[in-house]
Amino acid sequence: MSLRYAKRMDNIKASEIRELLKLTQKPEVISFAGGLPAPELFPIEEMKKAAAKVMDERGAAALQYGPTEGYQPLREKIAKRMAKVHVDASADNILVTSGSQQGLDFVARAFIDPGDVIICESPTYLGAINAFKAYEPRFVEINMDDEGMILEDLEKALKENDNVKFIYVIPDFQNPSGKTWSIERRKGLLELANKYNVAIVEDNPYGELRFEGEIFPALQHYDTEGRVVFLGTFSKILTPGVRLGWICAKPEVLSKFIMIKQGADLQSSTTAQMEVDQLLEDYDLEEHIEKIKVVYKRRKDLMIKTMEEEFPEGVTWTDPDGGLFTWVVLPEHLNSRDLAVKALEKNVAYVPGGAFFPNGGRENAFRVNYSNMDEERIVEGIKRLGEVLREAVK
Amino acid sequence: MSLRYAKRMDNIKASEIRELLKLTQKPEVISFAGGLPAPELFPIEEMKKAAAKVMDERGAAALQYGPTEGYQPLREKIAKRMAKVHVDASADNILVTSGSQQGLDFVARAFIDPGDVIICESPTYLGAINAFKAYEPRFVEINMDDEGMILEDLEKALKENDNVKFIYVIPDFQNPSGKTWSIERRKGLLELANKYNVAIVEDNPYGELRFEGEIFPALQHYDTEGRVVFLGTFSKILTPGVRLGWICAKPEVLSKFIMIKQGADLQSSTTAQMEVDQLLEDYDLEEHIEKIKVVYKRRKDLMIKTMEEEFPEGVTWTDPDGGLFTWVVLPEHLNSRDLAVKALEKNVAYVPGGAFFPNGGRENAFRVNYSNMDEERIVEGIKRLGEVLREAVK
Repeated sequence: MSLRYAKRMDNIKASEIRELLKLTQKPEVISFAGGLPAPELFPIEEMKKAAAKVMDERGAAALQYGPTEGYQPLREKIAKRMAKVHVDASADNILVTSGSQQGLDFVARAFIDPGDVIICESPTYLGAINAFKAYEPRFVEINMDDEGMILEDLEKALKENDNVKFIYVIPDFQNPSGKTWSIERRKGLLELANKYNVAIVEDNPYGELRFEGEIFPALQHYDTEGRVVFLGTFSKILTPGVRLGWICAKPEVLSKFIMIKQGADLQSSTTAQMEVDQLLEDYDLEEHIEKIKVVYKRRKDLMIKTMEEEFPEGVTWTDPDGGLFTWVVLPEHLNSRDLAVKALEKNVAYVPGGAFFPNGGRENAFRVNYSNMDEERIVEGIKRLGEVLREAVK
Repeated sequence: MSLRYAKRMDNIKASEIRELLKLTQKPEVISFAGGLPAPELFPIEEMKKAAAKVMDERGAAALQYGPTEGYQPLREKIAKRMAKVHVDASADNILVTSGSQQGLDFVARAFIDPGDVIICESPTYLGAINAFKAYEPRFVEINMDDEGMILEDLEKALKENDNVKFIYVIPDFQNPSGKTWSIERRKGLLELANKYNVAIVEDNPYGELRFEGEIFPALQHYDTEGRVVFLGTFSKILTPGVRLGWICAKPEVLSKFIMIKQGADLQSSTTAQMEVDQLLEDYDLEEHIEKIKVVYKRRKDLMIKTMEEEFPEGVTWTDPDGGLFTWVVLPEHLNSRDLAVKALEKNVAYVPGGAFFPNGGRENAFRVNYSNMDEERIVEGIKRLGEVLREAVK
């Protein structure tokens, strides 16, 4: 007996990262594979206090159903914090989601008919590729340099495809490349989106994790027409375990996502929303983010320094100004999937790069995370990776 | 400027209940509209203790990402509890979801191509209709008597439609009708599903809330071929605010839902799962359910008694053996949407019945919830409704 599934199920595959993470949960494995924040920085005691206060003061409300849009005081706080990325928002612009992964699912659901085109960076976030694929789009990948997408290539793609629904971009410390879009390129992107009337999906989980200097204005800052849908999350700046993110959009656009949310899961957890709201009342999130940045920068610097010492000639990597990842590019004849097996034999894990190209075909790169391992394991892990790579380029 | 949305967005509308609930949040409104549990029964102090214990003992893990399938100890506990509805399950059969509403979205996503047929009870749960509509199915409604669907009508529908993907059923204390399927009808349903090779989606949020006698075996109990997908939830037996439910299915079927979950929101809250798991360790959920049942039965009995006293001739209602709802049927010439306006003028709310018929056209019924209002308000609210109805039938 076999049940008859929908056609879209042919496109849905288990995420390689999630499957890989299972292998890497053994304590002896030095894992650069996941995108996990450093657990030792979680404000555990403060979460405990916030939870207790919520239960003491508003327990019944916290355990009851709440509005689909989200808990109003939290929506207000999120809206206010959008000023950090230079976006002027009110609660009416905010829908609380279950992590920004849910935002990715929702934008796909709102915009994509089978066969529609999504334009994305090349490489782009694996979790977004998986979320979008369920809605049967065609992906057009645009090459990037150190300032973002090559805009000439983007315009060519917009000209050649008349059913482009949105351009998907992670403008800050991109996952997986670690690259950040320049201000000029951001403005240019908006001009093209306006000219060709397409939406922009701005996935911005890391923007606030800039190690030095000023946070860049979000793409949404440059949006005069309400065509940018901004996806934010508490996962990287506070905790991923509570699964709280948000969509920031013009109310008319947001209303579509609110209707989608009703059908998808009614609402995000009232309890979690009230607890995080309480945490933001009593705890200095901005100071907390400063602490995260110091630790991640130190880990990143150490990783890059060790790569310089250990990786053979012909291997290059990005040196990101923030976020969680660097991207290692190998000589063209090497296959990072094959090398991942060799690395796992030495108890080191990364994510092979091929999975970040929706149309496939590029196997000579991999993504490395530096936020989740301590300094000792970073040095040891990169040393072992160096051995694998030196052996491979021989 | 207007963004170009996917075609499915034409089918997605704001839920009438959720919109109505906004109106009914004023304290002066006696609301029989929502499906809210009684907040005074929530185990607030115990949730506080469970949260504190989790943060003290496993705080970092509770705030980190976790597996898509769910927190293993909680999956095990849920599997074990499936014995209450006579289903033999292990953790491998359980995917933790964000409420059973997410289960409804997932079954639609897994099975429905545009134009496929879903067979459902008539009337059926509004939230399911909304979740399914996003995937562009055709609904075939089957009339019910007091024992469940009329099986002759069901077989006719299965014969006449060759693209039926699943039969959607709420077998216990159905939302909105309050009806429960007999054992014989359950067996008959499984026979037909086997004969015509279709899946069954069993939505079972209320099965454990049987006021008297033994809990009925779930449809899944009679399933010898793995074609029943069971949707469960903690919303009605513990708290809806944490948004935790589950799908119980054969591992081969469950694997589809796990992949869907990865794309949809990666996983349900690690924090909430660990907290509920801790609560189940330290607190007697079964005893808690007994308490809920006593209160709900008293409210239901009082509501039915008051209806008998106050509602005019020609109006009928169901007297459910459990769950949260009764279903009031008016003389055919009356329109419950119109009367809802009159009732709201008297600060009483219910959900007009038309919304529970996916193909529309039946407006002379409405759903009444008895779990969320105290006894005084139940009597007062039904009295006011009686005035509206007596005026209407004149």
